[in-house]
This record gives sequence, structure tokens and C-alpha cells, in this order.
Amino acid sequence: MFGVRACSALWGSRTVSRVQLLRTLSGMTVAQVGLHSIVYTCTITDLFNPMFCFVMQIDEEVAKLLQLKAKLGGDDGKIQFVLKTPKGTRDYNPKQMAIREKVFNTIVHCFKRHGAETIDTPVFELKETLTGKYGEDSKLIYDLKDQGGELLSLRYDLTVPFARYLAMNKITNIKRYHIAKVYRRDNPAMTRGRYREFYQCDFDIAGQYDAMIPDAECLKIVYEILSELDLGDFRIKVNDRRILDGMFAVCGVPDDKFRTICSTVDKLDKMPWEEVKKEMVNEKGLSEEAADQIGEYVSMQGGMDLAERLLQDPKMSQSKQACAGLTDVKLLFSYLQLFQITDKVVFDLSLARGLDYYTGVIYEALLTQAGVAPVVAEAQNGAPGSTEESVSVGSVAGGGRYDGLVGMFDPKGRKVPCVGVSIGIERIFSIMEQKAEACAEKIRTTEVQIMVASAQKNLLEERLRLVTELWNAGIKVQCICIFNPKLLSQLQHCEESGIPLVAILGEQELKDGVVKLRVVATREEVDISRGELVEEIKKRTL
Amino acid sequence: MFGVRACSALWGSRTVSRVQLLRTLSGMTVAQVGLHSIVYTCTITDLFNPMFCFVMQIDEEVAKLLQLKAKLGGDDGKIQFVLKTPKGTRDYNPKQMAIREKVFNTIVHCFKRHGAETIDTPVFELKETLTGKYGEDSKLIYDLKDQGGELLSLRYDLTVPFARYLAMNKITNIKRYHIAKVYRRDNPAMTRGRYREFYQCDFDIAGQYDAMIPDAECLKIVYEILSELDLGDFRIKVNDRRILDGMFAVCGVPDDKFRTICSTVDKLDKMPWEEVKKEMVNEKGLSEEAADQIGEYVSMQGGMDLAERLLQDPKMSQSKQACAGLTDVKLLFSYLQLFQITDKVVFDLSLARGLDYYTGVIYEALLTQAGVAPVVAEAQNGAPGSTEESVSVGSVAGGGRYDGLVGMFDPKGRKVPCVGVSIGIERIFSIMEQKAEACAEKIRTTEVQIMVASAQKNLLEERLRLVTELWNAGIKVQCICIFNPKLLSQLQHCEESGIPLVAILGEQELKDGVVKLRVVATREEVDISRGELVEEIKKRTL
Repeated sequence: MFGVRACSALWGSRTVSRVQLLRTLSGMTVAQVGLHSIVYTCTITDLFNPMFCFVMQIDEEVAKLLQLKAKLGGDDGKIQFVLKTPKGTRDYNPKQMAIREKVFNTIVHCFKRHGAETIDTPVFELKETLTGKYGEDSKLIYDLKDQGGELLSLRYDLTVPFARYLAMNKITNIKRYHIAKVYRRDNPAMTRGRYREFYQCDFDIAGQYDAMIPDAECLKIVYEILSELDLGDFRIKVNDRRILDGMFAVCGVPDDKFRTICSTVDKLDKMPWEEVKKEMVNEKGLSEEAADQIGEYVSMQGGMDLAERLLQDPKMSQSKQACAGLTDVKLLFSYLQLFQITDKVVFDLSLARGLDYYTGVIYEALLTQAGVAPVVAEAQNGAPGSTEESVSVGSVAGGGRYDGLVGMFDPKGRKVPCVGVSIGIERIFSIMEQKAEACAEKIRTTEVQIMVASAQKNLLEERLRLVTELWNAGIKVQCICIFNPKLLSQLQHCEESGIPLVAILGEQELKDGVVKLRVVATREEVDISRGELVEEIKKRTL
Repeated sequence: MFGVRACSALWGSRTVSRVQLLRTLSGMTVAQVGLHSIVYTCTITDLFNPMFCFVMQIDEEVAKLLQLKAKLGGDDGKIQFVLKTPKGTRDYNPKQMAIREKVFNTIVHCFKRHGAETIDTPVFELKETLTGKYGEDSKLIYDLKDQGGELLSLRYDLTVPFARYLAMNKITNIKRYHIAKVYRRDNPAMTRGRYREFYQCDFDIAGQYDAMIPDAECLKIVYEILSELDLGDFRIKVNDRRILDGMFAVCGVPDDKFRTICSTVDKLDKMPWEEVKKEMVNEKGLSEEAADQIGEYVSMQGGMDLAERLLQDPKMSQSKQACAGLTDVKLLFSYLQLFQITDKVVFDLSLARGLDYYTGVIYEALLTQAGVAPVVAEAQNGAPGSTEESVSVGSVAGGGRYDGLVGMFDPKGRKVPCVGVSIGIERIFSIMEQKAEACAEKIRTTEVQIMVASAQKNLLEERLRLVTELWNAGIKVQCICIFNPKLLSQLQHCEESGIPLVAILGEQELKDGVVKLRVVATREEVDISRGELVEEIKKRTL
């Protein structure tokens, strides 16, 4: 009671809604003090500490604002739960999980066809592991609170943990995939499948191989996955960091402006050239002339022919870097021909992916079919920024070569060449979900083969005995866990959830040692002897 | 340069090891200041700000300590990476992932056999969602740093997010499983499979059903999974929260000490009774007489018979709560008989699982086979606390009924009865890994069916053409991505990684339109026409 008064005094006119003396914990009296949704467990001494009360006050204001924001009713001092998932995150319900499982199966099957192994890493890394890897995007990293011990951050992608893993285990050679969640404190656009927690689905080849063969295999994988998922037409844009740098050099961009001009070029998929140019000249201080020269190059698209033409280009050919990049793009296209995927791949000088760690080939896959649902949905919402976002076509995969990243982790700077691709699985989920909804496709969320039901009362034990028999034989069975369910409701449940068979038990069936097997779709019924039931179910649910 | 001097002045005798003026970013001059492993990107103005320099100093000290701790060599001001995963976490390498996939398949198959759907929730929740659910263990929750916006915590288990999901979506009826990672700032014991990041594998049944049927199904699931994983003999201990509370009441424990005495009873699997009693009397202030009465009850073990006997017990039968619990345990055992699993289930009055949210039946499965490897390994290390840990037998699953949890999230307090079980998958992984190592079992980490190889030079293109043919036909193929690999090294790779077949290409084979198919195990070789190759591979790698 002392605590309450002391605290109220410190808080001025405020009243503490709940102070509850708890219990003697290791001989120390402990109180729970609560205002709104925050409850503090503290010692009585804490309540006399002005700093403690000050922190409580700040936390309390934040909680109040959050609650007001969620508009969940009155601020009456009662504990109010904001019943939601954190901003930019979502639950997956069983239907979404069924779609997710299907998509993952397709993708994993493709990775396995290419002989990949898989690894997993922790969801958080030492903070310093992520430091200096993401350029301007570092501000989007989630940090964990310092609760004593190491400083930790949630992983921002799967590539940096992969590089850390290689360096730490001195692995110089691996083809691996990794499907896991990553975290970015980005502005979420959930209707378009952009979340703060989202799956990445990465395939990477590390090791010293002959030029462009692993790079071409990554593109083959993107091609296979996007074809098999049947998401409509797509394009894979290809460029090379060295071509971009060479282009900047021959266009007269000062060395120290390469990265920032590159970020501006990267916006070309979201803004028209005029705006990009304005940013280069007005914000980044580039000369109008240099910007115009860049403008000419970044409008170029083609295939192997374009690479050949640029190798002859009087300006471009002055850059050794650009020539190295162009020669590799030429070689890459020769392998893409062998892999039979050149119909969807475009060499596009405007592609300039943001991440700092790319050193060679870069690529990005886009869905090109008009009216990809999620984009349209957001544009109609008229939310701020929706115009910009509706222009953006759906990027569903991206990657490139990053030969320097592993060396950043190795104590002796030993490099391991790497190339990889990340499948934009959340965008793909969103599209698949909308497709499933649009065609009113019925998605099963369980694989139950048969329901054990009864038309008569007091047969629970007999039902459970049969269920046990079937479980023990490996059959997927369901049974309503109540004494006397109605037959109609049991049959309805089967129709709703797509269970194909029902085993109906009654006094007569028990006497005859049979089960009435009902096919839900046709309503056909047939008596099957108990001994033959398992085989019959297997035959009918292949 | 100004920044360096200003900063040095503020830091007194310290020297900044690196100050690097970076670039003009949106017209603002930016510097990178580094001491040890921390690098700050800041404006020049920041360097004059005493608060900024103060924060830098603190961070720097923390980083220094961390580095010293990791003993990674000199403090020479060079950027030093501590190349490790965070404390209590681990990477999974491809072999571990192969084991993990196998274990998950077994478990998921069992869940699906029981008709369960699956859901997923975000890795973090609003902090307040977890508040007040875990009693004394709340201190183990990982919080995220407040970077603006909502206050978040990493999930501590999958049960509370499940309850939040049910309340949020007004679901009153679901049988679901959820396999995902959870986070506890606990003292890790990694050789025993206890981590700070670990998988949970939960199966729960929510909904109003007739008593003890879903509870019995949870035990059936534990029984099936532990049997199928072939981990040696096991026991499933069963008790009921109401029996414990009734027992405390009739033994004269004051109401407000039920929970704390319950936590002490929970330690009986790790400490002998004498120590538990000492804690009750000396630390928790219980009378010696009450403690002795509890001691008598908690030594009791049995089956349905014990429940019947206790219902007649003159003291126990005075508690309505205890009688309700005992009647349910009797009923539970009748269903366990139908499910044919009573041989491994024991009614044990000493079982007192820690979590606050259980309201009825509770259970825990333990491996009983002597010499479960991880425990022994730790005891031999002689690490502090290892004696205690080596006494503890391997708990590999646990759960119970929690009828009140969903109501804690519902604005109107509407309850949804729930019962569930969590499989201790990390402990199981550890055992499986040690088993695999012990019997020198060869674990394949890929599913590659065939390697496309060549004995001659300059056949890269031909190899890639064949690989493409096979990929397009759905065959899992590997091929060494270099111009002229040696045949011997290609064959060796197959032997090491368990690839069963090799397709060997040479000038002669290309002329004849065939491929030399080699069986790695037997070294048998046979020519197969290109047109029949796919079928032949499928036939041989069923």
C-alpha cells in the first residue's frame, strides 16, 4: 500500500489502476503495477525510484497511443488487449497453409532436381554480422533489446547468414537452398504481398567454377519455377554490376557517386526516366550531360547481340570493367541457349539491383501479364503511394553474383565466389491465393481419407475402437469426439471438408462384423467386412 | 578532419581508430567513425554532439568485452568479426537438415493421420500478448528493441499465439498442428538439445467435446510418434491440475501458496524428495507436517486403479476439485484402453508442469532407456550443473488442458476449451544425430539420381545439353560446372555423396546417339540410347 501512495505522488494527478502485491519471491516482496495494458513486476523499492516511475510513464503513453490507434474501445483503465498481429505481419490460416505447402513443394522439388542440399541458420545473428552489408537499407534491420549478453538483430535476408556460415565452417563449395523467414522494418504493402516478416526462398552456388555456368543454372531455376507455378508470362532481366560501373565511368560520373547514382537508376522500374534524371541532376548533383548519356544506355534492351554491339561501342569499350561484364553476358547467353530459356531472358542495362554486395551478373524476374491481381487491388484502394506501386510490375525473383561477401567474414579475407537467386515467395503466395479465390477452387486443408460415423446412440466406444484399428494401419481418419453426434452432421462435415469416405457403424454392422462404407460424392453405400476395410480404403483413396 | 579532433577531445585520451569521410548523401557530409568492431555512419554535426559520443563510448565498451570473451585475437583497431552464431543457437548443416526432414515427416504424417490442419503465426507478437502468461518464466522472453512503433517480443511458445489466433478469428473449433521455432533466454545446454532458439511441434484440439476424448487423442499421438521414431522405451506420466490443487488444499497449503508449492513439486524430476521438502519448508515457509503429507501423495504412481483408490481416500475425497480430476483421470484411462496405449501411461501425482495456464489434465513423456546419449555426454563434461542435468531423464513431450487461455484474449472473456501436446523435437534431433553418428550410417543430403560426366575434354556443351534434357524430364541431375573435369573426380563425387548412376558422354557415344550408363555401386556399364535414357533412369532409381 505504501507503494501505491508513493507512486501516485510521483505521478502527480495520475492514478495507478492496479497495484497488486504479489508474493515473497526469494524473500523479496514483489508488486505488479499496471496502467492500461502494461503490467510491471517490480520490487517495492522500485516504486520509490523516480527513474522507474518515469520509464513506466513513458511506456504507458506509448501503450495508450497504440491502443487509441487500434480503436479498440474505451480507455477506462481496464486491461485491454489489442487483438492483432504486429504491423506488417500476418497469420496463415489452414487454407493459406495448404497453398503455401503446394508452392513450397514445387520449389523444393526444383531445387532438389538441381542437386541442392539445404541448411538452416538462426533467425537472429550477432548485430555486427549484419553491419555494413546492406548500405542505406540497414535502417530497416530489426534489433533485439539489450537484455544483457550479445547484441542481436533479426536476419534481413538469407544471403549474409549464408556467407557467415561458409566462412565460419570454412566451406568453399556448396550448392544449397534455404527457405526461411526474414525481417525488414519496411513500409508494408500487404495486399501486394509485401510484409515485414516474409519468407525468402534462396538457392545459391558457392565455389570456384568456370565462368557463367552456375550463373546460368540460377536463371534456369527461376525459369523452371515460374513456369511450373503457372503464374502467367514473365521476363528475366539480366545485367552486370561491372557494366553499370563501366557505364557510369564512361558517362563521366565521379567515382564516389557510383553507388548513389546506381540507387537512382534502380528506381527506373518505378518512375519514368524524366523523374530519375531529375533526381540525378537536382539531388545527386550530376551534370545534365552525364545524365543524358546514362539515359541513352539504360534504355537499351536485347540479348547476346546487344552485348556484342556494346563491346564495339566507342565509349563503352573504353572501360575494361564494362568489357569484362559484356564478355560474360555474351558467354551467359550461350549457356542460356543450351538450357533452352533465352525466350524469356532480356539483357537490360536499366537493371541495377540495390544491394551493395553484388559484384557481377545481376538479374530479376518480373511477371508481365497485365492485371496481376494484387497490384490492381492496391491501386484501387487509393492509399498514399499507391500510384507509384501500381506502376511497379511484379518482381518475383532476383539475385546475382557476390564474390566478395564471404571474404568479409573470413579472418584472412579468403574469398569464395558465390551466385544465387531469391524467389519472391510472398508475392507468389498472394497471387496464388487470389487465383484460388477467383476460380472458387475448393482447397482441402486436411488429407483425411475416411470419417468413422454412427447413426445410432451409445456407440462411441465402438467408433473409437474402429478409429484405433485404422490409425494403427496408417489410415487418415477423423471421428467426431462426442458421445452421440447426429449422422447428418457427420456427413455434412465430410462434404464441407472434402473427406471422400465414411465408415458407418450400427448394431447390425457390429453383429455382422462389417462396416457400411459410404462414398460421399455418389452416396453409394456398400458393406465391407472389418478385415478387408483397410485395403478397401487404400484402394479407393489412392 | 574536424570531426576527428572534436571527437578525440570529447573522448579524452582515447583515439578514434578510423574516421572516414564518406560521401555527400542528399547534400549532407557523412562520416564513418569506427572503434573496434563498431562502425557508425553519422553526420559531421553528430561528432560534436556529446550525447552521440557518449553512446559511442558505451557501445564500444560492450563490443570490446564481447570480443575479449570470444578470444579472437588482438585488439589492434582493425575490424574483427566474431564468427559465431548467437549464444544458445546453432546452424543446421545439410546432414542435420536431412535428419530433421525425416523426423518432421514422421511427425507431420502422424498429425495428418489424425486429421489435423496447420497454421502459422509471426515469429514475434505484440509484447502485451505474451504478458502474464508464463508466470516466473516471463523473464526469459526476448524483447525487440523499441525502434518506434509497437513493442514486440519473440514468441515463447506456440500455445499463446494459438490462443490469440483463435480469439482474434473467433474460431471455436479446430484441430491443428504448428511446427515452428520459439525463443527463450534460458541457460542453454546444447549437448542435451536445449537451445535458446528451438523448434516446437505442437498439436492442439480446440472445441467443446465430450470429456477426455480429445485429451486421450493427444496421448495417442505422443505414443505413436515416439514409437515410430524408435527412440527406445518411454513412459507418459499423467496428472491433473485439479488433483494437485485439491491435494494442496487437503494437506493444508494456504491458497496463496498453491502456485509456488506447485513449482517446487515440479522439480521432483530433477531433485530428490528431501531437497524438495527443504525448499518447501525453508524457502516457501510451509509447515513440516503439510510437506510430509504432500510427500506421501506425490510418491504415488499407478493407473485407473490409483484414481479409484484416491476417490475413496478419506482426505483426498474431501476436495471437490480433486474428485473432479480423479473422475476424469479414470475416464481418460478408459479411452486409453480403447486406444491400446495403457502399457506406457502412468498416473503420477508428482507431475506438476510449470506453466500457469493449465486447468485440467497434464502429461509429460520421458525416454526411460538408460544411457540416452546427450545426458551422459554432458555429465562427463563436468560442467557446472551437470550433475543435476544428468539425473533428469529425457522429457520429450508435454502438454495438457488449458480451458482458460483463449478467454484471456477474448474481449468478452468467451472461453474455448483446449487440450494439446508439444513434442520436444530438439531433444529428439540430438538423439537421432548421435544415433546416426554411432552407427556410422551414411546420410544422403541430396536426392540426385544421376551425374552427367565425361571422360574427354571439350564436351561441356554436350554435357549441359544432356543435363537440360534430363532436368526437363524431371530427373534429378548433377554435373560438375567446369570445362574439363577429370572422370575420376566425377566418379569419386558420386561415391561420396551417394549418387547411384553416372551418364558418361564421349565422342563415340555422341556419334552413336547413346550414353554409357554406369551403376556406381557395381561399376557395371551399359550403353543406353538417348531416347530411352529417362525411362531407364526412372526404372533404376525407383
